[in-house]
Amino acid sequence: MLLMEGIDILVSEVGPRDGLQSISAIMPTAQKIRWIDALVAAGVREIEVGSFVPAKLLPQLADTGEIVRHARRHAGLHVAALVPNAKGAQAAIDAGAQKITLPLSASETHSLKNLRRTHAQVFDEVAEIAGLLSALPHGQRPAFEGAISTAFGCTIEGAVPEETVVALSEKLMALGCDEIGLSDTTGYANPAQVKRLVRAVHTAIGSDRMTGLHLHNTRGLGLANVVAGLEVGISTFDASQGGLGGCPFAPGASGNIVSEDLVFMLEAMGLRTGIDIEKLIDARATLAAALPDEPLYGFTPDAGLPLGYSPAG
Amino acid sequence: MLLMEGIDILVSEVGPRDGLQSISAIMPTAQKIRWIDALVAAGVREIEVGSFVPAKLLPQLADTGEIVRHARRHAGLHVAALVPNAKGAQAAIDAGAQKITLPLSASETHSLKNLRRTHAQVFDEVAEIAGLLSALPHGQRPAFEGAISTAFGCTIEGAVPEETVVALSEKLMALGCDEIGLSDTTGYANPAQVKRLVRAVHTAIGSDRMTGLHLHNTRGLGLANVVAGLEVGISTFDASQGGLGGCPFAPGASGNIVSEDLVFMLEAMGLRTGIDIEKLIDARATLAAALPDEPLYGFTPDAGLPLGYSPAG
Repeated sequence: MLLMEGIDILVSEVGPRDGLQSISAIMPTAQKIRWIDALVAAGVREIEVGSFVPAKLLPQLADTGEIVRHARRHAGLHVAALVPNAKGAQAAIDAGAQKITLPLSASETHSLKNLRRTHAQVFDEVAEIAGLLSALPHGQRPAFEGAISTAFGCTIEGAVPEETVVALSEKLMALGCDEIGLSDTTGYANPAQVKRLVRAVHTAIGSDRMTGLHLHNTRGLGLANVVAGLEVGISTFDASQGGLGGCPFAPGASGNIVSEDLVFMLEAMGLRTGIDIEKLIDARATLAAALPDEPLYGFTPDAGLPLGYSPAG
Repeated sequence: MLLMEGIDILVSEVGPRDGLQSISAIMPTAQKIRWIDALVAAGVREIEVGSFVPAKLLPQLADTGEIVRHARRHAGLHVAALVPNAKGAQAAIDAGAQKITLPLSASETHSLKNLRRTHAQVFDEVAEIAGLLSALPHGQRPAFEGAISTAFGCTIEGAVPEETVVALSEKLMALGCDEIGLSDTTGYANPAQVKRLVRAVHTAIGSDRMTGLHLHNTRGLGLANVVAGLEVGISTFDASQGGLGGCPFAPGASGNIVSEDLVFMLEAMGLRTGIDIEKLIDARATLAAALPDEPLYGFTPDAGLPLGYSPAG
């Protein structure tokens, strides 16, 4: 998305969606709200607060509408939600989401297994959502991101051809998405690949239409891939507080990159995130209190800030 | 150092020195030899096998002479050793080390605390070592690296001025070092700083005289800093199998970056290390058998290689 004033890099917090959907415990609505409020107090500018999926599929996120409505009370916060289809998009619009993200798996095998949809079926939903959005008055229209998952490789198909990802990006834009995000769902990405694939997508659809990466830390390369992304102009990175949800394939590894480590790195590099790292680390307590049995990840919270550390700006 | 044929990046294994000196257990000589042999079998081209310090200071490394003599039997392996002073350098030369590394802490406070030496006293040792080396026939002269520790910040002094690191690099070269290495002893480095400081040192002494980085993963930025180093032409990275020794300040964090994750990343990027990642992961078993009570780190060994993974070359 377009960057807000006073920040260089947008850290988009996806813990309330991606983290919470990956664990079996259900966080009560009041505690979600407390956590989101703590994140906002730390300066977080965008939060993916939930997903509009049937409650029987993801009971952990059944209260997403209520959460969106609460989050919208924070002026200056950009409230995002995931939607699997047009029905979810309508619910997101009704609740007031400012950004809706629809995932499409580059690997069609993965798409069939996880979403039980072919690419063609997902394209139909994208077109329908674009129609819903175009009927809205301009000021009330949420941004619409097509998020290409398994973009860097698939645990079922293996390598995913870069041309596939480029072609899907073009197709999603043609169907009415405003922007494209690339997701390393499987933790397969490496820095050289990140640079190569981002450049290829930029060439195809324009660098201002693909500004966001969703990276995992499965093999410890999460922040290395962020550095590669920065080299090719990426300005939005998804991350999850405490790496909530972990990675089922790698004990000890977070799934999503850890917000605390990402913010520490960016600010140390002189890139303003708008986030106060100390307050962000404080917000872990809110999360830990709500989910005492979930392990939280991150190196910076344990190691502490360097002596004489000064954030960007 | 100059790169060997057939490789793009040299991964210099420092576990037998930096890892073993950081733990209280003493690995028996026979087991060190077995571990080194397993590393060589995996394709590791350079190993820092020990340190020539008084046995009463570091009993873990008391057998360094014997280990150097054993390691030298491996044709194609570059055998490195740390030396704190001219006396240690003479012992390293006598044992047949092919590279000797003398550490100098950029922070003089840290130098006084850790080595009980002022900068001036370390300079005297450097000059004396250079004298020893110049008396040797050319073919028998080990490479002489001046390794600037706390180059990216100090836990006692805080920020370390870049001019200090540049000036120390120039001084060490003037006194007779062949090359300079920079060490992030404290895990303070960030990717922007890595690029800036490496460029500054390159400008001062020549890019062919500063090719190596020694990075820690204290705050999870180890591999991110490697990517930054690659961007500015660094071609040698120290790493430690299993991150042996850990980081005393950050439970759950390796001290040195983990060799397995580094090799996985570099090879995935298409950069040849000469190391077979699967055999390297196998070598962990030798290490774990010798030190059953020490935690080993690394994400790639737990997560496994990506489906369809193909190494460089």
